[in-house]
Amino acid sequence: MSVQQLLQEAKAASAAMGRANSSAKNQALETIASELEKNSALIIAANELDMSAAQKNDVSQALQDRLRLDQARVSSLATSLRKIAQLDDPIGESVRGMTLPNGLLVQQIRVPFGVIGCIYEARPNVTIDIAGLAIKSGNCAVLRGGSAAENTNKSLISVIQAGLEKTGLPKSAVSTVDPFGRDGAVELMKANGLVDVLIPRGSASLIRTVVTESTVPVIETGDGVVHIFVDASADLATAIPIIINSKVQRPSVCNSLETLLVHADVAEKILPALGKELKENGVTVHGCDQTLLHIPDAMSATDDDWATEYLSLDLAIRVIADLDSALTHIAKFSTKHTDSILTSDSLNAERFLSEVDSSVVMVNSSTRFTDGGEFGFGAEVGISTQKLHARGPMGLRELTSTKWLVRGSGQVRS
Amino acid sequence: MSVQQLLQEAKAASAAMGRANSSAKNQALETIASELEKNSALIIAANELDMSAAQKNDVSQALQDRLRLDQARVSSLATSLRKIAQLDDPIGESVRGMTLPNGLLVQQIRVPFGVIGCIYEARPNVTIDIAGLAIKSGNCAVLRGGSAAENTNKSLISVIQAGLEKTGLPKSAVSTVDPFGRDGAVELMKANGLVDVLIPRGSASLIRTVVTESTVPVIETGDGVVHIFVDASADLATAIPIIINSKVQRPSVCNSLETLLVHADVAEKILPALGKELKENGVTVHGCDQTLLHIPDAMSATDDDWATEYLSLDLAIRVIADLDSALTHIAKFSTKHTDSILTSDSLNAERFLSEVDSSVVMVNSSTRFTDGGEFGFGAEVGISTQKLHARGPMGLRELTSTKWLVRGSGQVRS
Repeated sequence: MSVQQLLQEAKAASAAMGRANSSAKNQALETIASELEKNSALIIAANELDMSAAQKNDVSQALQDRLRLDQARVSSLATSLRKIAQLDDPIGESVRGMTLPNGLLVQQIRVPFGVIGCIYEARPNVTIDIAGLAIKSGNCAVLRGGSAAENTNKSLISVIQAGLEKTGLPKSAVSTVDPFGRDGAVELMKANGLVDVLIPRGSASLIRTVVTESTVPVIETGDGVVHIFVDASADLATAIPIIINSKVQRPSVCNSLETLLVHADVAEKILPALGKELKENGVTVHGCDQTLLHIPDAMSATDDDWATEYLSLDLAIRVIADLDSALTHIAKFSTKHTDSILTSDSLNAERFLSEVDSSVVMVNSSTRFTDGGEFGFGAEVGISTQKLHARGPMGLRELTSTKWLVRGSGQVRS
Repeated sequence: MSVQQLLQEAKAASAAMGRANSSAKNQALETIASELEKNSALIIAANELDMSAAQKNDVSQALQDRLRLDQARVSSLATSLRKIAQLDDPIGESVRGMTLPNGLLVQQIRVPFGVIGCIYEARPNVTIDIAGLAIKSGNCAVLRGGSAAENTNKSLISVIQAGLEKTGLPKSAVSTVDPFGRDGAVELMKANGLVDVLIPRGSASLIRTVVTESTVPVIETGDGVVHIFVDASADLATAIPIIINSKVQRPSVCNSLETLLVHADVAEKILPALGKELKENGVTVHGCDQTLLHIPDAMSATDDDWATEYLSLDLAIRVIADLDSALTHIAKFSTKHTDSILTSDSLNAERFLSEVDSSVVMVNSSTRFTDGGEFGFGAEVGISTQKLHARGPMGLRELTSTKWLVRGSGQVRS
């Protein structure tokens, strides 16, 4: 089968998926969950092939950890599908409706996109998340999961397809172009008319490639140069726990803190204690000159630090004059993912919420809450840092489009 | 000033526009409306320069008609701005909200895109419509209106900018790259980071160029190969008026009827009378063999006719076996703009609404109602025939994005 044939089969399957009712889709998700558990030995054996190749290729420990599947992780994939089955079905939801003066009934309802492409890197859980969200939202998914996870994904997708067939849904609803290597990804990016939307998920360079090369509409998920601004009125008792949580709870992900801005009036009060706690948590501080006065063992920050998404136990700290300076710094360096202000001043809080142009803007909260799971969306497609169609954590609703239905009784336009 | 400087000024102005409240924006629209009326002589003089160039260049009468401004048309531009001022302001509208189990208040609100680019062709009313909708929705607009209307647009934009300044809003909120010729359009299409979304409006070839060349996200507005299917149970008394209205009321626009599908069971009953009425209205019929039996003076249709957007007093007619054949024909040839079924059978009506994958799907209604004005949106940005972000007629809400606000009291993630 060629990539074109595969995409045409997905397109053909999208009509049946779009018409499938909630109970059929939920039954498919439950069946796939059970099949995953039943076939866990096979899946783990396939994963071992990918793991030993990764070890041979000296792939980093972090990537190996993301790739690895064991019994517990296969169970958690099944749990994730069962959670998606419990979510509300967005399809058919009425978005807007009105009766026109001439009596026409006009209704805007939520419909599936049709075929969703997803390009990502060696993460078996993304295969299950995207497949599960696509099925629940009545879409077909064509996946490109990267050669490093090829055996694992092949095994997962054959289990998914078996589950779809058992419940009477088309097995072409979830497929992969992995066997076609890079050509598969390239054809996916040019498949206008067959693929309705393409979602890249992974490194900044992967996303840039897809945005540049794709002629299919893309929802850009982005990297996070995430800020916290400690205002002069911040409650210092909660500030340090929020900063530590935002930085160290899981430093490798996009919603973790990268740059801390501190109001000059409280630098002396907060930085020495914070410096100590950061050190205890293994965090390397890259500070401005003012910061170095209070955290003497910090490295000296350069302008590059303000623009860096470390994704590691590193934190840039800058002491600034006031809220305006914080807003200016954030406007210049934020990747528009998540930014948070710690303050007791409600006017400053509201100004920050209003003026920071990011997907998620927070007051007195850890930045780690920017997450589909935390927001109650079930599994997450990714976090959109652009403004078209979806912004912030993307769940089921973000995998839908709309359609207008007009019901008349012979109306003509005069 | 370079295109880059102009785009940077628009970007800078977008912060003030995003914060402007409804009364400031409405006052600006009212002021611009008055300024248009006060300066109508100047505007009409500028338009005369474009009109005489158009006459010299043998531009078609239809295009000259679209380009022409007179006193009445300038008044209707002002009226259109006053209507936009009366619409609800979409900015700040709460889209979704929830309180997380940990007490975080999460709210999704509507925000402006920032900077909207629009590329269109020699239609002064589009300049006013887009500028008005952009101002009302808190956006900045950078326009490329085509060289054929350059003098008219220059004059309109200087009036708009004067009105913005008078009301204390940044005049860079509405600007044009027309003086930079094609280079201006090219830079607009590549201005990632400065332009948030680009909307092409015009011919199929203009739209294709923008979709292919732009790296900025595009909302595609499309051509309309629009269908009506006359089902076996159609009420023939209302069918003929709907068909005539859909075809002849304004044949040059995208929501006018191009292909009529007729159930074989009613071909004999409807086609002779319909053929007569179409002839009286000056419509040339391109029919299948079955159609020619009932409308003998029709031209013989080829497969090309099913795929043609005539935009003229031509109509393709095909007699088909049943609803399934209609759905198959529409799936193959529709441009997913608007398709309508004429039927008294409610099961067939619901199947058509559910299975036709178009922006607007109708029952017993003229296709001419697919229109922002008719839907009550005020002026219209265009009609989206794609599925990302906006589908069908686009009004103010379609010029917005969203943003998540999170209000906490020290929450950290465990």
